[in-house]
Amino acid sequence: MSKKLTKRADDYSKWYNELVVKADLAENSAVRGCMVIKPYGYAIWEKMQAELDRMFKETGHENAYFPLFVPKSLFEAEEKNAEGFAKECAVVTHYRLQNDPDKPGKLRVDPDAKLEEELVVRPTSEAIIWNTYKGWIQSYRNLPLLINQWANVVRWEMRTRLFLRTAEFLWQEGHTAHATETEAIIEAKQMQEVYATFAENFMAMPVVKGAKSESERFAGAVETYTIEALMQDGKALQAGTSHFLGQNFAKAFDVKFTSKEGKQEYVWATSWGVSTRLIGGLIMTHSDDFGLVLPPKLAPIQVAIVPIYKNDEQLVAISEKVDVIVKGLRKKGISVKFDNRDTYRPGAKFAEYELKGVPVRIAIGNRDLENNTVEVARRDTLSKETISQDDVVVFIENLLEEIQENLFTKAIDFRTAHTTHVSTFEEFKEAIENKGGFVSAHWDGTIETEDKIKELTKATIRCIPNDAKDEVGTCVFTGKPSLKRVLFAKAY
Amino acid sequence: MSKKLTKRADDYSKWYNELVVKADLAENSAVRGCMVIKPYGYAIWEKMQAELDRMFKETGHENAYFPLFVPKSLFEAEEKNAEGFAKECAVVTHYRLQNDPDKPGKLRVDPDAKLEEELVVRPTSEAIIWNTYKGWIQSYRNLPLLINQWANVVRWEMRTRLFLRTAEFLWQEGHTAHATETEAIIEAKQMQEVYATFAENFMAMPVVKGAKSESERFAGAVETYTIEALMQDGKALQAGTSHFLGQNFAKAFDVKFTSKEGKQEYVWATSWGVSTRLIGGLIMTHSDDFGLVLPPKLAPIQVAIVPIYKNDEQLVAISEKVDVIVKGLRKKGISVKFDNRDTYRPGAKFAEYELKGVPVRIAIGNRDLENNTVEVARRDTLSKETISQDDVVVFIENLLEEIQENLFTKAIDFRTAHTTHVSTFEEFKEAIENKGGFVSAHWDGTIETEDKIKELTKATIRCIPNDAKDEVGTCVFTGKPSLKRVLFAKAY
Repeated sequence: MSKKLTKRADDYSKWYNELVVKADLAENSAVRGCMVIKPYGYAIWEKMQAELDRMFKETGHENAYFPLFVPKSLFEAEEKNAEGFAKECAVVTHYRLQNDPDKPGKLRVDPDAKLEEELVVRPTSEAIIWNTYKGWIQSYRNLPLLINQWANVVRWEMRTRLFLRTAEFLWQEGHTAHATETEAIIEAKQMQEVYATFAENFMAMPVVKGAKSESERFAGAVETYTIEALMQDGKALQAGTSHFLGQNFAKAFDVKFTSKEGKQEYVWATSWGVSTRLIGGLIMTHSDDFGLVLPPKLAPIQVAIVPIYKNDEQLVAISEKVDVIVKGLRKKGISVKFDNRDTYRPGAKFAEYELKGVPVRIAIGNRDLENNTVEVARRDTLSKETISQDDVVVFIENLLEEIQENLFTKAIDFRTAHTTHVSTFEEFKEAIENKGGFVSAHWDGTIETEDKIKELTKATIRCIPNDAKDEVGTCVFTGKPSLKRVLFAKAY
Repeated sequence: MSKKLTKRADDYSKWYNELVVKADLAENSAVRGCMVIKPYGYAIWEKMQAELDRMFKETGHENAYFPLFVPKSLFEAEEKNAEGFAKECAVVTHYRLQNDPDKPGKLRVDPDAKLEEELVVRPTSEAIIWNTYKGWIQSYRNLPLLINQWANVVRWEMRTRLFLRTAEFLWQEGHTAHATETEAIIEAKQMQEVYATFAENFMAMPVVKGAKSESERFAGAVETYTIEALMQDGKALQAGTSHFLGQNFAKAFDVKFTSKEGKQEYVWATSWGVSTRLIGGLIMTHSDDFGLVLPPKLAPIQVAIVPIYKNDEQLVAISEKVDVIVKGLRKKGISVKFDNRDTYRPGAKFAEYELKGVPVRIAIGNRDLENNTVEVARRDTLSKETISQDDVVVFIENLLEEIQENLFTKAIDFRTAHTTHVSTFEEFKEAIENKGGFVSAHWDGTIETEDKIKELTKATIRCIPNDAKDEVGTCVFTGKPSLKRVLFAKAY
């Protein structure tokens, strides 16, 4: 909190990096590209996990845990998937260290402890899981198999940024097996829907649901469904994906089942995941030049109460009043922190809660005691109000809901203002370069055009929206016929 | 469920291995020594996690997340700790795979992608965490730092067994920093107490609290506090440990703080952990020749209801009654499964819930409809009772408590019957070899005697119990003077 936060308008990227560290969310570690998630950041992740986990279980999924390591021979079994991840794999080759004979007190890899087969640290778990499913699936009675895993994964990315792209990250990965193609597609779409509901109702982050174009698909998927959010700098963030995998993994790992009719058939698959990247999306959707702004539903502390006092006697009197308020709020399931630390002054506490995005701050001083009032400050609008102590619990309860809605509305408005429908490539370039945001344009459906547009503008197809209307038009780049608009943007 | 479970008396170890697999808890994976935790096993872990997490937070701890990898130079910084784990480390040496030019479709490690410094997959996180704490701790105002992490760790053990000893396992590891030695010791003891409370109140597994002898201490610890449980085969299981680390890690990573008096001092540390090994302990404490026996407080399904019907009409009538019971039980927070699958017969369902250790099974058939009754079966005693439908909710609620208590009492009785106080080494050997269990004996306090006893009997000192009375005696092996009895046992 010592130095002021960079302003978004001055350097958005710097603002983001500083904010993540200053708000005590995460920091870079001694391991290249790996982050330390600090308690305050992890508390947000725990809130996300709790809600997502509830939603997964409500839709019939169970959690399990599969090994961190994938033997190389399994990893390479589904070729497209392997090819997609091979370039960024951490590989375990040895299982022992020994004293370094040349450097007393130091260790070195024991050359005699070389593994016969190298182990890949999972970048995603399809391979190890489908190799396991082979033993679990014999008959239609074993299907559907609806499993989720909360885990860490490693992708050796060259350019990393806290939460958005790190070598190790935390995520959940669902892996399901089905008797029919239709059932698997319904599952994949259902999970896209679950992700969208979570993003909008809990993160207050509006998302566009759509399908990926072929070149942006998950390696090994037949279809990738995505939710795409728009950040304040006009760049899109892929916030979650759900893949229909066809029979690709079933064939690679020879997973067949006996159907009701007694026939041997390959199983149909899906996989879907969201990660700690969501925290990056949360930050970039709502926060401002003063610091983090958290939606109440995911805020580790929803209400911070700061006493303003000159002596112990005043603190005692204030604490008595606060105690009643705290109890009332907790009864409503609202998380409150009464910050009576005497090592910090009220101003420093105000600054801390502002920086950390606590949705509501209550201040209570001597005059409030006399008037039976408290001062309530909103983080989202930075406005303040004086409220009777008698009404404070109900007021706060409603206010938290209002803040949650307000954040979502603001984000929707921002997205609306930053979604441009274009007809010509000039308009396209103008929108991408100067305005940013989503650009809705006709596209001829070819990878060549997509690549060319990317090369010229750095914009990629974020998705073919689920709700795209049938609309006859011509490709913004080639002029060839097109039946639908797709969404382009520069992306994280 | 196809083949019968081996009996404990015939081969305890085989019984255990079979049970873990047959009850759908876990299985071995394609990765040497790594297990797959199946949904039913993972559901038990989730219940354990939820309760432990609540207890950690109640005692002021916050969760965070630190990297999976530890650079070799950090790993070796605390020499004793490094020495203790070096022999069983998975080591990442490369960060990329490439197409194998000799084998089309296959991958190989890219020799150009060798890491400058090898990365150790964390066997425990003291090194990476204390390297991080250096940046977090400057002043006494940053202390105490009370952090826990839920994570996977890897120790390349040569002999592995599901849950009890696996190359990868899931655990939590608390890492705390304190201004004074006393405060750190109090913390370490507090966490031992938390673990003991959890083991006894939730797992219904009695434990002895004590300190480890020097040779059984955690590598890098000044003192290791342990909870030791006794399994049905007379072997002890170290179920959780809490370490007072002194200033060892603070010195290795140069973590100092400015005290209130303005002096620069090294920080005092603790670390403490329990793992998925607890599931092994849970199984071996309560289960029998018919399968798993789970204490109600950790059972994923507390009550299974099986309808017995001849036709759809009967099933409909039964389902109506069951619906009322299910709602009543859920209202009390009891987890119920109404198993109305028509793909399995009642007998198969009974066998399944018996094998899976569901504490209470309710059966309801046509005659029960006429008599307004249900049949209630207890998994722990295998006894059955007919109960009026009107009383069933209250009955079950009380019954679950009774089962929880009964399991604990049985385990306590077993331990009492298998704890032998001995005065001579003949008695010692007799007890260890023929009776098993804990042997309470005087010991002269030397590593040499401890080693010699281990060599001759395979028994180790499990702990010096916290409640050991001062009692003048002579070492059971050397006859030298001793002031306390310690607990010996063969151990997992």
